[in-house]
Amino acid sequence: MAQGLKVAVIGGGSSYTPEIVEGFINRYDKLPIRELWLVDIEAGRHKLEIVGALAKRMVEKSGLPISVHLTLNRREAIDGADFVSTQMRVGLLEARKWDEHIPNLHGVIGQETTGPGGMMKALRTIPALLDICRDIEELAPNAWLLNFTNPAGMVTEAIRRYSKVRSIGLCNAPIGLAKWLSAKYDTTPSHIYTEFVGLNHLHWVTRIEVEGVDRLPELLDKRAEYSGKNVPASEWDPDFLRSLGGFPSYYLKYFYMTDVMLEEQLESLKGGGTRAEIVKKVEDELFELYKDPELQEKPKQLEKRGGAYYSEAAVNLMESLYGDKRDIQTLNVPNGNTLDFLPPDACIEVNCVVTGQGPLALPVTRVPEQAKGLIHAVKTYERLTIRAAVEGDRDVALQAMAAHPLVPSVRVAKRLLDEMLEKNRPYLPAFF
Amino acid sequence: MAQGLKVAVIGGGSSYTPEIVEGFINRYDKLPIRELWLVDIEAGRHKLEIVGALAKRMVEKSGLPISVHLTLNRREAIDGADFVSTQMRVGLLEARKWDEHIPNLHGVIGQETTGPGGMMKALRTIPALLDICRDIEELAPNAWLLNFTNPAGMVTEAIRRYSKVRSIGLCNAPIGLAKWLSAKYDTTPSHIYTEFVGLNHLHWVTRIEVEGVDRLPELLDKRAEYSGKNVPASEWDPDFLRSLGGFPSYYLKYFYMTDVMLEEQLESLKGGGTRAEIVKKVEDELFELYKDPELQEKPKQLEKRGGAYYSEAAVNLMESLYGDKRDIQTLNVPNGNTLDFLPPDACIEVNCVVTGQGPLALPVTRVPEQAKGLIHAVKTYERLTIRAAVEGDRDVALQAMAAHPLVPSVRVAKRLLDEMLEKNRPYLPAFF
Amino acid sequence: MAQGLKVAVIGGGSSYTPEIVEGFINRYDKLPIRELWLVDIEAGRHKLEIVGALAKRMVEKSGLPISVHLTLNRREAIDGADFVSTQMRVGLLEARKWDEHIPNLHGVIGQETTGPGGMMKALRTIPALLDICRDIEELAPNAWLLNFTNPAGMVTEAIRRYSKVRSIGLCNAPIGLAKWLSAKYDTTPSHIYTEFVGLNHLHWVTRIEVEGVDRLPELLDKRAEYSGKNVPASEWDPDFLRSLGGFPSYYLKYFYMTDVMLEEQLESLKGGGTRAEIVKKVEDELFELYKDPELQEKPKQLEKRGGAYYSEAAVNLMESLYGDKRDIQTLNVPNGNTLDFLPPDACIEVNCVVTGQGPLALPVTRVPEQAKGLIHAVKTYERLTIRAAVEGDRDVALQAMAAHPLVPSVRVAKRLLDEMLEKNRPYLPAFF
Amino acid sequence: MAQGLKVAVIGGGSSYTPEIVEGFINRYDKLPIRELWLVDIEAGRHKLEIVGALAKRMVEKSGLPISVHLTLNRREAIDGADFVSTQMRVGLLEARKWDEHIPNLHGVIGQETTGPGGMMKALRTIPALLDICRDIEELAPNAWLLNFTNPAGMVTEAIRRYSKVRSIGLCNAPIGLAKWLSAKYDTTPSHIYTEFVGLNHLHWVTRIEVEGVDRLPELLDKRAEYSGKNVPASEWDPDFLRSLGGFPSYYLKYFYMTDVMLEEQLESLKGGGTRAEIVKKVEDELFELYKDPELQEKPKQLEKRGGAYYSEAAVNLMESLYGDKRDIQTLNVPNGNTLDFLPPDACIEVNCVVTGQGPLALPVTRVPEQAKGLIHAVKTYERLTIRAAVEGDRDVALQAMAAHPLVPSVRVAKRLLDEMLEKNRPYLPAFF
Repeated sequence: MAQGLKVAVIGGGSSYTPEIVEGFINRYDKLPIRELWLVDIEAGRHKLEIVGALAKRMVEKSGLPISVHLTLNRREAIDGADFVSTQMRVGLLEARKWDEHIPNLHGVIGQETTGPGGMMKALRTIPALLDICRDIEELAPNAWLLNFTNPAGMVTEAIRRYSKVRSIGLCNAPIGLAKWLSAKYDTTPSHIYTEFVGLNHLHWVTRIEVEGVDRLPELLDKRAEYSGKNVPASEWDPDFLRSLGGFPSYYLKYFYMTDVMLEEQLESLKGGGTRAEIVKKVEDELFELYKDPELQEKPKQLEKRGGAYYSEAAVNLMESLYGDKRDIQTLNVPNGNTLDFLPPDACIEVNCVVTGQGPLALPVTRVPEQAKGLIHAVKTYERLTIRAAVEGDRDVALQAMAAHPLVPSVRVAKRLLDEMLEKNRPYLPAFF
Repeated sequence: MAQGLKVAVIGGGSSYTPEIVEGFINRYDKLPIRELWLVDIEAGRHKLEIVGALAKRMVEKSGLPISVHLTLNRREAIDGADFVSTQMRVGLLEARKWDEHIPNLHGVIGQETTGPGGMMKALRTIPALLDICRDIEELAPNAWLLNFTNPAGMVTEAIRRYSKVRSIGLCNAPIGLAKWLSAKYDTTPSHIYTEFVGLNHLHWVTRIEVEGVDRLPELLDKRAEYSGKNVPASEWDPDFLRSLGGFPSYYLKYFYMTDVMLEEQLESLKGGGTRAEIVKKVEDELFELYKDPELQEKPKQLEKRGGAYYSEAAVNLMESLYGDKRDIQTLNVPNGNTLDFLPPDACIEVNCVVTGQGPLALPVTRVPEQAKGLIHAVKTYERLTIRAAVEGDRDVALQAMAAHPLVPSVRVAKRLLDEMLEKNRPYLPAFF
Repeated sequence: MAQGLKVAVIGGGSSYTPEIVEGFINRYDKLPIRELWLVDIEAGRHKLEIVGALAKRMVEKSGLPISVHLTLNRREAIDGADFVSTQMRVGLLEARKWDEHIPNLHGVIGQETTGPGGMMKALRTIPALLDICRDIEELAPNAWLLNFTNPAGMVTEAIRRYSKVRSIGLCNAPIGLAKWLSAKYDTTPSHIYTEFVGLNHLHWVTRIEVEGVDRLPELLDKRAEYSGKNVPASEWDPDFLRSLGGFPSYYLKYFYMTDVMLEEQLESLKGGGTRAEIVKKVEDELFELYKDPELQEKPKQLEKRGGAYYSEAAVNLMESLYGDKRDIQTLNVPNGNTLDFLPPDACIEVNCVVTGQGPLALPVTRVPEQAKGLIHAVKTYERLTIRAAVEGDRDVALQAMAAHPLVPSVRVAKRLLDEMLEKNRPYLPAFF
Repeated sequence: MAQGLKVAVIGGGSSYTPEIVEGFINRYDKLPIRELWLVDIEAGRHKLEIVGALAKRMVEKSGLPISVHLTLNRREAIDGADFVSTQMRVGLLEARKWDEHIPNLHGVIGQETTGPGGMMKALRTIPALLDICRDIEELAPNAWLLNFTNPAGMVTEAIRRYSKVRSIGLCNAPIGLAKWLSAKYDTTPSHIYTEFVGLNHLHWVTRIEVEGVDRLPELLDKRAEYSGKNVPASEWDPDFLRSLGGFPSYYLKYFYMTDVMLEEQLESLKGGGTRAEIVKKVEDELFELYKDPELQEKPKQLEKRGGAYYSEAAVNLMESLYGDKRDIQTLNVPNGNTLDFLPPDACIEVNCVVTGQGPLALPVTRVPEQAKGLIHAVKTYERLTIRAAVEGDRDVALQAMAAHPLVPSVRVAKRLLDEMLEKNRPYLPAFF
């Protein structure tokens, strides 16, 4: 690594790319990138060209010796890379639309990272990523694969179990919480200690200490103040929240307030359509902006997109891996002995110390009793989904669908599965 | 025990009593009962007198030296007992009616052993049984407490964790399956081997061998043939069943066919009322029969009542404990290391070898992946319910209610909890 | 199995064979053997002929339709067998002599089932048995392999981990204890309950109930009364024994009374030589008896040989497997979750229920704290030895030797290893 | 803590005190000590006055606003303390002399932190420290107790299990290794990553990375270069070391080279006496130096004493706890789920991230198979010793002594126990 690092971004034509480029520029002193490869598939060529050109202008303005490469040749991008990052979307936003829409038609939450929608996204994505992993095993066996692709927990677990690639799953929620807390309490993130327990998009924050003071009880009384961009704000029941034992991920609303959330989704359908359709519009606008040859920096509007801090999360992780920094980050990694009710190879979202040899999961000081059943129920769905994705087995997929807490019965599970598999047929050759 | 055994039956005025009396008479050579104490509360005095008189007539006819005692003095009955058995119902069938009815009014399954109804029954029953255990600890510390009182899994776990009484939970489902299999395959139960995994009323039978031949695949193809008395028959989806990995408890229909089962409950409400109301009628008829001074045996009509084989299960267990028989029975006992995802003190329903010192849980050869999440979700509800019952804590009760897979949201959980606690106020002093 | 069972005895020329033949004859009604194949290697041809002729005379006298076959063709014997039993000795008693003698020369206990001697026996035996297992996998994949070959714990673990053969390890110690207890307390074994914890030749009996009465405390006060044939009697320290928490295997004397046992071994060397040499004489005498064409039964003198009850243990196990008897036997099987400090695939000696599908290990009610370290220390040596045997790795063998509690230092370990490997060179091709 | 910290040093009259005072002075900016209380018992009054006067001169020279207090009133010192540190020696060096001498007389290793000597030290120390903990629970419930008192592993485990005090055990070995490595490879400790597995004075270093390069294989080839001050240098067998799977603690020589180490001890006895007697002379010389009213700093000669880096270890730990520094330190803490073969409350020596709420044990990436048995054997001795110390139970003490791998037989164990308990009678009231 003496002469700097090589980074490959799979799905480089994504609208998020300017963010990560900005991150690399700002952190160059700690993380000396020599080559940045943006790679995409033929269908994404146009977007890759637009965003790639912007990336080049950004680097040029910075004056740093980073070379930016655009390519449709994945193997060339991966060859010898130190880091590979993925931000791909198999089936594009069109597929996401159906992930959200079809469940709604059956009175079920439509969400791209959990439930029937998350399952379809996993079935599309896992084989594609395992295919990429075959290349990494061959061409960059020591690379770290940073996976942002949702459903990040399932995808990371699949990679860990079915390839030899060293992979870590990442989410922007932990860093988002730290930002929010540091603003609220007017302090720096380094004076905040939070402990996460659970899975990706299914976590409880069981410790929140700000400058050494336990702020969890106070925050459980004011939960409504905080809400994520991707999730409509809804009121938590105050009695429920107070006794929940941890500050909930905003995705937990789908499980605890299913009725309210479903109503909102159905309402939203009547208006702007699914979340996918709203995002599509934002993206189109972004790409219009990106085309401007005068633009040399990340446009403000990108923040509306929903993935705030993704870039910061990625750059933080790379820096700690590269520099053996040994700081604490919340990541998606294999469970090991952390949660004694899950198998060692199950991916969980947990605090880790990031060393030069990878993250080491910290023990959790407490797991709320009330969280265990839900964690295990969703993990069961995840493991069955991963198996279905790898084996292309429709029976296992049915078990996975029926096992998800948001799916009300086997009858509904079967209907959803049949319809959604059919709709995703082009991306699921193993099932047909 | 040289001069024969003393048995105390708590809730001795139950309509089931003639069954257990018949069992004691038939098995006298292996299980020499000297004294049988039927004990009930003041409110049950009338029934106790009726059923007690029948019991005495039955024993008299048998010519065996068993003395039958009727009493309202629980301590006298327990004092020095070798076995205590419970078949009580705090709040009587009236309370059961509301356990079933109120959830239905909110579009939720109403069932006396799981969900909101099971929770209320547990909240009523656990403190009452722990009170009985205080007496057993003092007056019969070496007695075995055989618990038939539903929800048997939660009640047994509560006794094990909050008293020193040696308790075992019993259900008639395992023996019922063995009877059904031996009829179907024209063989004796001793030539059948079944392996149970899960909780009380939430089990999967993962091995079924008849005369050494694996019959599980065949049975998973013909599941509809078999249904329990207490549970309306409904069709399982054949694809789902085939890949489920185990023959399901009929109570699993509440979880997998929630929609169908709820429709049937609502339909049934319009007709004969809740299951509680139907049972009430059967019971009234039974007591009319019991009054007949010519009746000297268990009437045939008792079989309609739904608790077939309870007596056989009880007598089998007592005989094996008394005689150190070391046969295999399916019982509700602490998990130990059996299921590696549940704590050691969680009660599970599992095959045991019954020795003179008590049951030893056998290891399970396989746990279907798809069962794990549901087992853990329900166990979470159970543990929170037990804690709520012991501590009288409404917050914990809310967490328990919200954690149950059949409760669709926190909002509904809270409404159910408020209404049902209010309706059960007389039996739940700790909550008010 | 309709027409009776086929049994293959590997090492059929052993002096023990008349015992097992007697067992088959006596138990014919429960265990209908149709074909008994005694198989040996060329070097054992002469003994095989002698003992085989006796076996045939014994069967003839019984009038039972068992056909006895003698062969040097192992594959013929194994083909289609229901049970395969092993009682082989790679290197014959000559090798055992050095297993016992060389350690003594270095001031270390010489014993054929543990320590340096047990290690050498394992290194010789494991590859030979795995070779046999290749044949069983191919020719009798459903056979049960009953392994009596010492060191039975290591050999059975090696077979379980490195082959697909269904294997169970057997020892005569548990049945010997039951016989001794039933004589002492004048009762039948079925009225005795004993619970074993530990490894083969390294167990503690933590429960001894005779007709329901706990006899453990009393027995720990009179330990000296009981001693095994294979192990010289020595006095246990009464204070130590009382607080040991379990009735010790007589092999535990090697660990707890190392000094006394070593003195006796060295003394014995001066007299009749090693145990191997004494056994050799007994065997020679036995074969002289066996040659007598008038002899039609097991001669009394065989009991001096040391393996009392081996036959009974084997026949009991076969009967329970064949008849799905579900009785409790103490066997060497994989740990599973039984001992929480050992890996699931480690073989332990533990009570099992023997079903038609194999043994299910019963949970242990208690593990004395003081036993844990020693169990784990010896298991460490066992696992390293197994690895060394399979991989032929001298470094791992050195770690194994040094890890054994009876080996006082690495320096001694290395000397022992070098000398003993050299002496065993003909039987250890993988190491040279 | 706004106005600075209060620290109480139990055993403040120790010759080590100038080191820790130096540490506080040097680290004042990060660890603002306001009050330093040196407390000792009446028998140590003279030493306390000498070393206390030196401490005051050192602080005075520094010009820092730290007030130094000398007292024989322990409760006054503990009251409101933020940190309590212990460096006491019950029975003084005289007791240590017998810890080392008596085992030697029986041909057994004499060592003050393991084996019979370590056991006696534990029996003397644990009750005394638990007594101190009663004061801390009452007067400084939020204090951290930093325990340097050997045997640090057992003492820390006893405190954790039998008090509510937040205690951490510390050893200078890990920091000593880091210093040695950084000198050898000419880098800073922050560029070195080492992973420790095992117990206090019984660890294996299974990862050693220097500037990202794995140096373990190389170091296992050159082990002899490194040796601790407290342990005579002896040659490791190169074949053994290469396959050991981790860089061994120098205390492991007592287990792996018992013969050589014992010879050296016996030889040393003939010369300067036991290690205790040598240390006594060094100490006497140190106190002569300390008396010099001109001396205002830690004298160089202290380094000969053997406890190098103790002060640095202590100050590092306090700083990280106080400042929520979240760096990695190797500490003695409860096992939790770290080593799956030990109970959660067993103390182990392991890498931890030190947060403001205490240390979080990092998972270990690998445990060499060959280490497991020895770790568990010594932990068994430790747990039995702790129980004996707390209960004053001679039977349990005998089991502990016999369980230690360096004690060759129960006969020797009993003799050692009897003699050593008698010699320690004044310090072991519970046993007499």
